[in-house]
Amino acid sequence: MENFTFSNPTKIVFGRGTENQVGTEARPHAGTVLLHYGTGSIKRSGLYDRVVSSLELAGLPFIELGGARPNPRLDLVHEGIRLCREHRVDFILAVGGGSVIDSAKAIGVGVPYDGEVWDFYTASATPQRTLPVGVVLTIPAAGSEASKSSVITKEEGELKRPLDAEVIRPVFAILNPELTCTLPPYQTACGAADIMAHVMERYFTPVTNVDFTDRLCEATLRTIVRTIPIVLEDPHNYDARAEIMWAGTIAHNDLLGTGRVGDWASHMIEHEISGIYDVAHGAGLAVVFPAWMKYVYRRDVTRFAQFAVRVWDVEMDFSNPQRTALEGIHRLEQFFRRIGLPVRLEEMNVPADRLTEMADKCVESGAKGSLVKLDAPDIVEILQMAR
Amino acid sequence: MENFTFSNPTKIVFGRGTENQVGTEARPHAGTVLLHYGTGSIKRSGLYDRVVSSLELAGLPFIELGGARPNPRLDLVHEGIRLCREHRVDFILAVGGGSVIDSAKAIGVGVPYDGEVWDFYTASATPQRTLPVGVVLTIPAAGSEASKSSVITKEEGELKRPLDAEVIRPVFAILNPELTCTLPPYQTACGAADIMAHVMERYFTPVTNVDFTDRLCEATLRTIVRTIPIVLEDPHNYDARAEIMWAGTIAHNDLLGTGRVGDWASHMIEHEISGIYDVAHGAGLAVVFPAWMKYVYRRDVTRFAQFAVRVWDVEMDFSNPQRTALEGIHRLEQFFRRIGLPVRLEEMNVPADRLTEMADKCVESGAKGSLVKLDAPDIVEILQMAR
Repeated sequence: MENFTFSNPTKIVFGRGTENQVGTEARPHAGTVLLHYGTGSIKRSGLYDRVVSSLELAGLPFIELGGARPNPRLDLVHEGIRLCREHRVDFILAVGGGSVIDSAKAIGVGVPYDGEVWDFYTASATPQRTLPVGVVLTIPAAGSEASKSSVITKEEGELKRPLDAEVIRPVFAILNPELTCTLPPYQTACGAADIMAHVMERYFTPVTNVDFTDRLCEATLRTIVRTIPIVLEDPHNYDARAEIMWAGTIAHNDLLGTGRVGDWASHMIEHEISGIYDVAHGAGLAVVFPAWMKYVYRRDVTRFAQFAVRVWDVEMDFSNPQRTALEGIHRLEQFFRRIGLPVRLEEMNVPADRLTEMADKCVESGAKGSLVKLDAPDIVEILQMAR
Repeated sequence: MENFTFSNPTKIVFGRGTENQVGTEARPHAGTVLLHYGTGSIKRSGLYDRVVSSLELAGLPFIELGGARPNPRLDLVHEGIRLCREHRVDFILAVGGGSVIDSAKAIGVGVPYDGEVWDFYTASATPQRTLPVGVVLTIPAAGSEASKSSVITKEEGELKRPLDAEVIRPVFAILNPELTCTLPPYQTACGAADIMAHVMERYFTPVTNVDFTDRLCEATLRTIVRTIPIVLEDPHNYDARAEIMWAGTIAHNDLLGTGRVGDWASHMIEHEISGIYDVAHGAGLAVVFPAWMKYVYRRDVTRFAQFAVRVWDVEMDFSNPQRTALEGIHRLEQFFRRIGLPVRLEEMNVPADRLTEMADKCVESGAKGSLVKLDAPDIVEILQMAR
């Protein structure tokens, strides 16, 4: 196990009807609120009205910025920063999924910063301060509600880049599983792939003697594997939706990465795909992750066999652990297929003509991954295996 | 799953040599420090000198209060409160195990309170404020380093009572597994029982549909079961000590209790024993918990069978789940014996002449437990089963 520091102060308010507490939760942090959301589904569902009532009840004035889309765009972040400065906003409330939250986090660090906010996403500056961000979560997937991450896409150059900083963790996150019962099956499945990927990026580590966090990772993966088929069959199953939602937060709040180094190559490769093609991040991960596994598993057959045995109940083949390892990868791919996700680039309508370009962009700042260090030719190979 | 709120802001600083960062971690919170510790082992080990150097390097003046003992006493808390007021202390640094930390938490809430601090432990008042408390942990057991709990014993009346309040969570906890390599076997084993009990109190819940946290609990229990025999054989095994230390914190920081109701009857019963006899809390739990299980398991045979299968690798007896459940309890008792703990009252030299008195004191404020509500006659029966 490696040395680490861990602190996650995000206050989780979890359960039925909890969105009605948003005003109370925001009040200690807020004078004037930027209410940030996506493309309007929260208005159709009635969530918008409940949030607004709660803010009004708490006596909190707010201005609005809708329009955050999957793979959230830098342009909208600029617009949000301008609005916050103009209206002296001191608190951002993100109501939506990971895209809205990531966008809110970018606005939050952009407002008190004199330079261009994109600097934080190219690692040419480190954010020291932020407006506090609160969350009402509607999609369990990105884990952004309690994470230190934000991913923004710059339209010019089709660049999708992450920022990681402790300062951007939300001050609170309201998680009501009821809000997720109307998620369409495909979005539910994409969320599952995203959650599993957050765990697997941490699971496949070169660090040894991390059995406790291995087991916490396995617990989280098994929860997703058990519950997603339940909600695809029975979308209004509150109990299963609740397990998915809480697992989605734990998957990415960094507890599962304590004392270990994550890999993150699959995420970086996926960012290049969805930076260009605007595919759902979860779908992209369902395509990239199994391909990555097939390319790297020989580096640590034991760990991949453990994954197969403990997550997928594959019987250990002691005479041929490699076969066990491959069976685990196969089960993961089967699971993604079974829940309706693509597992090949073609199935997302991503052509094969820009694989080299993606690989080159991916390693612009250096080789990717920690279990195996990947250079551009490795990434091309992985993308070929994903065809 | 039930609605819940969860927030654990304690900053964990984990790994080799981390006690040398204590000055840096304390500085943002501290003007003058009360350095609180136990009966002197930190001086013999050299830890005291490293902590003092770090405080001095950070320019932090401090006064000292040693003498905290297992089952920490109210008298010393009073002494600490007096010292803090006299020297205008604004930060308490606890260097030690759960007793020192619990004592520090009591001093912390006592200083800004006009009334008698014991009020907080009888639930006749709720603490609103505290001096911030920081921790350098030397014993993985109580989980107090990141918990909202403190347990204090009032000598008069032999009363051992808990306080639970969010405000008393430490602001940071420094966890260096190296410091635990010199723990004697018996103390290591007592810590294991305490850690396992914190998980099991949450695991045995009447709340249904909590499989995710079930699995996190099982992961934590399996970690202790795997690693304790390793360190009893090889006390300086850093990797195993590290897993135990981190599992001990997670066992009691409330993550494992999210969305569920804990039972806690075994803890309450044990408090009556160690309130009178001054036995190690972990040893008391090793005696009480299996007896409690044998008394209540029929209420939820499935859950006890799950415990047996998933924690102890008992093969499920589908024709007789009760047998599986009992086998799990048996394995737990066997494990405690194997690591050198008592599993009967006599083995701790606790006579049987005050069982009724203990049971009566235990239910003074009402029946105990949530899986099964226990009144005084139930508790007498459990104590009889523990003989």
